Amino acid sequence: MESDFGVPGELSDLQKKRAEYQPGLPPCLQGTTVRVEFGDFTTTADPASNHVISHSFPHTYGQRLAHFLRATAKIPDAQIITEHPVMKVGVVFCGRQSPGGHNVIWGLYDTIKLHNPKSTLIGFVGGTEGLFAQKTLEVTNEILSAYKNQGGYDMLGRTKDQIRTTEQVNAALKTCQTLQLDGLVIIGGVTSNTDAAQLAETFAVAGCSTKVVGVPVTLNGDLKNQFVEANVGFDTVCKINSQLISNVCVDALSAEKYYYFIRLMGRKASHVALECTLQSHPNMVILGEEVAASKLTIFDITKQICDAVQARAEQDKYHGVVLIPEGLVESIPELYALLQEIHSLHKQGVSAEKISSQLSPWASALFEFLPPFIRRQLLLHPESDDSAQLSQIEMEKLLAQLVETEINKRLKEGTYKGKKFNAICHFFGYQARGSLPSKFDCDYAYVLGHICYHILAAGLNGYMATITNLKNPVNKWRCGATPITAMMTVKQWARGQGSSSIGKPAVHPATVDLKGKAYGLLRQNAAKFLMEDIYRNPGPLQFEGPGSDSKTITLSVEDQDYMGRIKKLQDYLDKVKSIVKPGCSQDVLKAALSAMASVTDILSVMSSPSYGSHAHAPL
Amino acid sequence: MESDFGVPGELSDLQKKRAEYQPGLPPCLQGTTVRVEFGDFTTTADPASNHVISHSFPHTYGQRLAHFLRATAKIPDAQIITEHPVMKVGVVFCGRQSPGGHNVIWGLYDTIKLHNPKSTLIGFVGGTEGLFAQKTLEVTNEILSAYKNQGGYDMLGRTKDQIRTTEQVNAALKTCQTLQLDGLVIIGGVTSNTDAAQLAETFAVAGCSTKVVGVPVTLNGDLKNQFVEANVGFDTVCKINSQLISNVCVDALSAEKYYYFIRLMGRKASHVALECTLQSHPNMVILGEEVAASKLTIFDITKQICDAVQARAEQDKYHGVVLIPEGLVESIPELYALLQEIHSLHKQGVSAEKISSQLSPWASALFEFLPPFIRRQLLLHPESDDSAQLSQIEMEKLLAQLVETEINKRLKEGTYKGKKFNAICHFFGYQARGSLPSKFDCDYAYVLGHICYHILAAGLNGYMATITNLKNPVNKWRCGATPITAMMTVKQWARGQGSSSIGKPAVHPATVDLKGKAYGLLRQNAAKFLMEDIYRNPGPLQFEGPGSDSKTITLSVEDQDYMGRIKKLQDYLDKVKSIVKPGCSQDVLKAALSAMASVTDILSVMSSPSYGSHAHAPL
Repeated sequence: MESDFGVPGELSDLQKKRAEYQPGLPPCLQGTTVRVEFGDFTTTADPASNHVISHSFPHTYGQRLAHFLRATAKIPDAQIITEHPVMKVGVVFCGRQSPGGHNVIWGLYDTIKLHNPKSTLIGFVGGTEGLFAQKTLEVTNEILSAYKNQGGYDMLGRTKDQIRTTEQVNAALKTCQTLQLDGLVIIGGVTSNTDAAQLAETFAVAGCSTKVVGVPVTLNGDLKNQFVEANVGFDTVCKINSQLISNVCVDALSAEKYYYFIRLMGRKASHVALECTLQSHPNMVILGEEVAASKLTIFDITKQICDAVQARAEQDKYHGVVLIPEGLVESIPELYALLQEIHSLHKQGVSAEKISSQLSPWASALFEFLPPFIRRQLLLHPESDDSAQLSQIEMEKLLAQLVETEINKRLKEGTYKGKKFNAICHFFGYQARGSLPSKFDCDYAYVLGHICYHILAAGLNGYMATITNLKNPVNKWRCGATPITAMMTVKQWARGQGSSSIGKPAVHPATVDLKGKAYGLLRQNAAKFLMEDIYRNPGPLQFEGPGSDSKTITLSVEDQDYMGRIKKLQDYLDKVKSIVKPGCSQDVLKAALSAMASVTDILSVMSSPSYGSHAHAPL
Repeated sequence: MESDFGVPGELSDLQKKRAEYQPGLPPCLQGTTVRVEFGDFTTTADPASNHVISHSFPHTYGQRLAHFLRATAKIPDAQIITEHPVMKVGVVFCGRQSPGGHNVIWGLYDTIKLHNPKSTLIGFVGGTEGLFAQKTLEVTNEILSAYKNQGGYDMLGRTKDQIRTTEQVNAALKTCQTLQLDGLVIIGGVTSNTDAAQLAETFAVAGCSTKVVGVPVTLNGDLKNQFVEANVGFDTVCKINSQLISNVCVDALSAEKYYYFIRLMGRKASHVALECTLQSHPNMVILGEEVAASKLTIFDITKQICDAVQARAEQDKYHGVVLIPEGLVESIPELYALLQEIHSLHKQGVSAEKISSQLSPWASALFEFLPPFIRRQLLLHPESDDSAQLSQIEMEKLLAQLVETEINKRLKEGTYKGKKFNAICHFFGYQARGSLPSKFDCDYAYVLGHICYHILAAGLNGYMATITNLKNPVNKWRCGATPITAMMTVKQWARGQGSSSIGKPAVHPATVDLKGKAYGLLRQNAAKFLMEDIYRNPGPLQFEGPGSDSKTITLSVEDQDYMGRIKKLQDYLDKVKSIVKPGCSQDVLKAALSAMASVTDILSVMSSPSYGSHAHAPL
């Protein structure tokens, strides 16, 4: 199997041209001298989890933030890394392939070789399987040349398997020790970065000198938090999907006779669906987060869509486009509960054929109501992370069928007076994630690759490479490193029958923030999108000319630069200090005391564990 | 409904930029003075059909070819059209939307207004329905501005309905007479252009002064013959699909665990599948034409794929990509026969639920063997052109299931020793045809629009706008007009039970030429594609920079320039004449006589009706 990897096929003209594209570097990473500034010690966003996380990660919890600065930056405490001994670094692709993944390896390779030509980069072949079995390929410029700025993970291959069981963790440890790796770079999403943190802790405990670094690469876009603004692959996948959605919108409007139901990738969270909606303006999107927040049943959703179809029919419109995130099935309360029962029976070893007869009465009634195709799909074994096989469950077909049945019923009753309802279903999954990466993803991944080296050079373990200020051009990007534990939370509720009531610390997928600006933009326009067909076509992904430098709308509208805002707060505090010095008037002191007492009171309440547990409702 | 058309939505940055793109014109169409050269009187490619066609089209059969030349061209017979009276032209979109359709209207509008600003262009709203019901929209520059170089047919809308029944033809005639149209331009594929020819003849018989012009616009790429090298939309659709196929190939190679079965649009012919294969190098493609030529059964095809899966497994490869044209079902002899029985029962008014009980014993046995989902799809009503609802019949799923069953059987028998076979199915249909058109399609459509005007200005009726030498840059393109009847043939065999044994003259879809160069290229590389995974990614459709000027491989490799070669032959004949003049030697005369006798003998045989009927085997 190995022999295929690193052996490129024939490149098209565009692929060749893309292979020549050289991503830029922000000023802080240019040249061979980089300063590291160590910032604050970190905590986690959920105060209720601190104790559990610090207990689980005694060696790697609470470490300081790191910022990479130019050698000439005027920060007194920053330290310049001057020694660059020979280094041996391993790199592995984990989870679903995301456009841009190859560029992380390229960036890492370039900077490793720049700092010491004798250093080596070892790729694990076939993903984590290769990590466990020590199947390696030394990355060279010759091998890289055909994968620069190219999509897929085919230079090394990948796996969806996790690094979780004791055997797996031990195998990884043994590999790193045998190969005497100084660093291990794990390229992946929330699960893989959780695994990276766990490995880092295990290695520290075992006295293994390999430092573990995570890189946020996932087309789902759900590895988002105070430190991580975007994920490699999300930009490309949203652009490719938006183009296809827009093409379908144009099609709908030209033919005027079909409703298209399109399911999009993105796992549990609906980031891809939200971004594509903002780019393409389809008539409707059913976000999993809205459904969960409003506890909408499958019948509520069906009714919503039917009402929309009816309202459009009254304006003589018999076409439309409805987007559905692949995670929807787990957001619908009754379907989620049914899935939990099924998965629990799977765990008890009940065979798929016998599960339906062992369901509780209510679950059985729901199950029997569903069409056969969806029953078969719900009965599939859960994935290794306990979630349903979301890519296999055709919710778009289920909704289209239910809507058709309901519209036909309304037609008979005389409440719907329009033409026949025709639906065509699509799943846009696999056709986007192997795409040539957008310029943004090429740049972002390449720079992250560079940061990985600097994290290792600074001797840090259990960190993720991060870049903030991403909505600005590359030369304004701020590069840093964050302990992965600072992104972890602990779920406080039971999940499935018989499982424990407190989860393990993990980097959990961020869901769409229903109070965020991107979602606000959708709400603001939803009525227009629904009725007015103001479809918008971002067009095919461009590498030159107009559109080639565009970024996702989510990234552009969200408040970002968390670290910049932390800095701003510190400036305020400094300013208060400088005003309220001995000698200031009684009135100034009184005002300052009163105001600060109020601020600290509010923040104490918001930061208490009991407040935190309310603020984090289950998905 | 009308109010929506011509009302643009919000354009993205790329859409805006594309709207500013100005396609070029070949020298012969630049300026306001164009010469028309009338060439040979035409015949048809199939000598056996001449009689039937000339009988059906007494007014429009056999007309001369027309070539458009620069005013300064040194062709003595050519005539310059100097008068450009006020003209009123109607235009209608027919059939499936193809990227570039809007540009035909734009080109037509520009040249109409250039020659006489008082002339008007009337668009029929909602396709042929608008034509029958006189629902119109005057095309203005303001309306056009948001549709220039944009995809879809949403400026006017479209329908799939034909202009075929007496009522429809009469309604169209009435519309043209009422609106006093000088010309009617019909934008569509084989069916619509056949209808255009029929309308032209009917109008001529009725003494209606409206001249009818057809334009070859169909993403299927099957309106191909001596006069038509390519169709508007094919280039874009193949590029978009090839990108998606390539993305899936990269995905397959990255994950190494799935076989992807992808069905492509293209109706009965496999041009799209062939072109995409040449662009993307997937492992396999099942061309309908190969299947029909070799009379492969569904079991033969299943076995072919299984053998490929097995051969790849022996090389430790468990992934792959298989392309399937949507017309495949009608190319498989036993499925086609089953469909014919079903359609015939439909025609007899048997309801879908009862059809299965009335099938002949063998058809019933086959029907019962098939999985329920495909049975339901086969029972769908045939389309208006008597073909099955190809877009609805999921042959990719059927093949994936049959292959899985067969591989599992081989696994039990011990002949297949590899890992489990996993298939994922896709239908790439609706997501490509609404795309922003490629530069080639923008240019091609725009220039065709110009030609439509010149055809009308020359007073021609029943012609199609044609451009040859397309593989060269725009300034080398040769523009002309061909009587649509010259592209017609008559099918000589029975189609379905109870239908007549001789068909009507029609422009039939051209199938992939199994002796052609494009197919030769596939055959030459098929073994490598199958085993070596030399996937190639043409990347997203580009509008600037590398790749933006590429054309389809089919167009680039095929021998083209039919008219150029006719010209070359005439040069040979002239040369023989000039050598063999009175006074030449006896030997020269003897050699010439002998050689020419042999040439004329061969050509006489090849052009005889009986030879022709053999050469045109049924699809």
